[in-house]
Amino acid sequence: MTATLITNIGELTTNVGALRDATVLIEDGLISWVGPSAGSAAESGSGSPPMPAADEIVDAGGRAVIPGFVDSHSHIVFGGDRAAEFEARMAGQKYAAGGIRSTVAATREASDDELRARVRGFVDEMLAQGTTTVEMKSGYGLDVETEQRLVRLAAEVTEEVTYLGAHVVPVEYADRGDDYVDLVVGEMLDACAPHAKWIDVFCETGAFSITQSRRVLEAGIARGLKPRVHASQLGPGDGVQLAIELGAASVDHGTYLTDDDVAALAASDTVLTLLPGVEFSTRQPYPDARRLIDAGVTVAIACDTNPGSSFTSSMPFCIALAVREMGMTPAEAVWAATAGGAAALQRSDIGVIAPGRRADLVLLDAPTHVHLAYRPGVPLVQRVWKDGVSVWRKG
Amino acid sequence: MTATLITNIGELTTNVGALRDATVLIEDGLISWVGPSAGSAAESGSGSPPMPAADEIVDAGGRAVIPGFVDSHSHIVFGGDRAAEFEARMAGQKYAAGGIRSTVAATREASDDELRARVRGFVDEMLAQGTTTVEMKSGYGLDVETEQRLVRLAAEVTEEVTYLGAHVVPVEYADRGDDYVDLVVGEMLDACAPHAKWIDVFCETGAFSITQSRRVLEAGIARGLKPRVHASQLGPGDGVQLAIELGAASVDHGTYLTDDDVAALAASDTVLTLLPGVEFSTRQPYPDARRLIDAGVTVAIACDTNPGSSFTSSMPFCIALAVREMGMTPAEAVWAATAGGAAALQRSDIGVIAPGRRADLVLLDAPTHVHLAYRPGVPLVQRVWKDGVSVWRKG
Repeated sequence: MTATLITNIGELTTNVGALRDATVLIEDGLISWVGPSAGSAAESGSGSPPMPAADEIVDAGGRAVIPGFVDSHSHIVFGGDRAAEFEARMAGQKYAAGGIRSTVAATREASDDELRARVRGFVDEMLAQGTTTVEMKSGYGLDVETEQRLVRLAAEVTEEVTYLGAHVVPVEYADRGDDYVDLVVGEMLDACAPHAKWIDVFCETGAFSITQSRRVLEAGIARGLKPRVHASQLGPGDGVQLAIELGAASVDHGTYLTDDDVAALAASDTVLTLLPGVEFSTRQPYPDARRLIDAGVTVAIACDTNPGSSFTSSMPFCIALAVREMGMTPAEAVWAATAGGAAALQRSDIGVIAPGRRADLVLLDAPTHVHLAYRPGVPLVQRVWKDGVSVWRKG
Repeated sequence: MTATLITNIGELTTNVGALRDATVLIEDGLISWVGPSAGSAAESGSGSPPMPAADEIVDAGGRAVIPGFVDSHSHIVFGGDRAAEFEARMAGQKYAAGGIRSTVAATREASDDELRARVRGFVDEMLAQGTTTVEMKSGYGLDVETEQRLVRLAAEVTEEVTYLGAHVVPVEYADRGDDYVDLVVGEMLDACAPHAKWIDVFCETGAFSITQSRRVLEAGIARGLKPRVHASQLGPGDGVQLAIELGAASVDHGTYLTDDDVAALAASDTVLTLLPGVEFSTRQPYPDARRLIDAGVTVAIACDTNPGSSFTSSMPFCIALAVREMGMTPAEAVWAATAGGAAALQRSDIGVIAPGRRADLVLLDAPTHVHLAYRPGVPLVQRVWKDGVSVWRKG
């Protein structure tokens, strides 16, 4: 058994708040001990628990350590690129969900190896930005064969695979949305369910109605998948209430929430996952996270990495936006991007630095987590551990 | 003489627009040749100039190459940190220029070696984000000895040193602003001018009046320094007109510009340098770059890296903000962050990819410059050359 001690941590973000001058012990891929650094323990001379021995000692140099980011919403198994659509939108064109169809065409054409190389590139890019867990959705296949390929390829790199056959209605089913839903809850579900943990639907005008969304989610639940929902991205709707009614782990976007939505979320176990990269890249108004948190809603932050509405993969960037644009404090935003993401995936083993949790840790080149918002855009991730293994370091 | 050929460039941003399938030859630190890639030249069979021989060939893999960023406005010679002030501001406290004084206290206490290590850290951080030229201002000393230390330390790492003794009135001179200006244009100027190229003043309510600003700039000009001005950051004022009247290379901020300011800028050789990181981190409204460009104003983008109002050092982040928030196209934003920055520093040797210019180049891990705005926050810089030397590469 190899034990790694990360010591001289200037600020450690834990489940009981920020600790100064802290040390973390990693054993067998798990956090086994959290306490004061040697110097501070000696100085305090108090009854601190003795610091255990270790095979490897890492000096954090007074810098901050936070949990690895848990990015609970991504769409990174796709072909093609929509840079031109982004440019047109920045020049004034409005975002419409239908743009998804151009990615569907490119994805259907791409080989498994091309998609696999792309996904692994994104996973590496995310790791270098501190993301140690990422959920991935299908939804750019929209036929049985391709949707199955997407969930299968996603399952090669993450445990958090979501079947999103109900992303939009493909062109072949134009004006026959209900027929497409038949496919999604029938043959396509049969093909995808063995590879997925989650069922998801884009419940929005222009995508799937509340009735269609209910059919999709209930069919998935009947097959042992757990529900999560895209809702209220482009306007208010009934998706949030449906998500809560069906016990969804999370409802995502929430750009347009009614007071009833907020009250229902606060009274539920459903997380509201904010995706600030979407508002940034579609130039929509930002939802008010302050209103949600003050009402008692559990809030997560995720990137929603996808080629249409949000092509960032940077959790630090999303944290900076959540602070600047959504009224969160830096500590709330970091919580939402770590413990909040874990809650949105119903995971109790990640997202928090505490004994017994997985040793998914990020050393920042900064004295405090506040710098993630205070220094927007700057690559502050210095080193990343996943399951106790050092998987990335700067330069 | 060593020649390096960068070939298979998917998109090359040049002074004559974006070239596809391009090649750049570097000799003696300069760009000596720009043309089509071998494959594309052979295919075209046209009268393209023959591609020269080289000692080293770099395959860009179809990715984009842009000029190194020219960051024409920074304040990175300082001690301390103002993360707590940033947190308070995000919780609702308004930005005030007076916060500068807390950095002054920390800077005066720091040793040369501490400041030198800090500055070099920032320069390395900027290089990793594609910035190959950075201007640096004094202004956190505000006494003769410390201001001289700051310009001297800046001159160790850049040719673009700005004497900004007139940053704010220090506490020792509270209610005696004119007496402080006497010092700035007298003994302090004597001490700093030998180390600096530029003279700058913060012409703003709460900092220096128009009369005081004129005294500072004219004294600097008389000593051979060239003028640049901070103006209209916190509200409209006369600073822009003063800058133009005195032939300043650039007037920076311009958050609150009148129609007269815009017309005067358009008719002048003075660049307007936008600092979108400031609006982001002080939660001020963004100025409208579209209005400026459409009126014929030459616009630059810079980071204004400083511990108070904008602690980003990321030109890509500022480009993304300029596109999202200021109405620039991605191509205009990249131009403003390269050629625009060079214009703001009156430099004709940098900021543009063309034969005869310095070989300051950035290879992006992206097919096009559009990704700098389309993928906000993502570290897309793959490799950086400065004066033809490969000075940084990713992982």
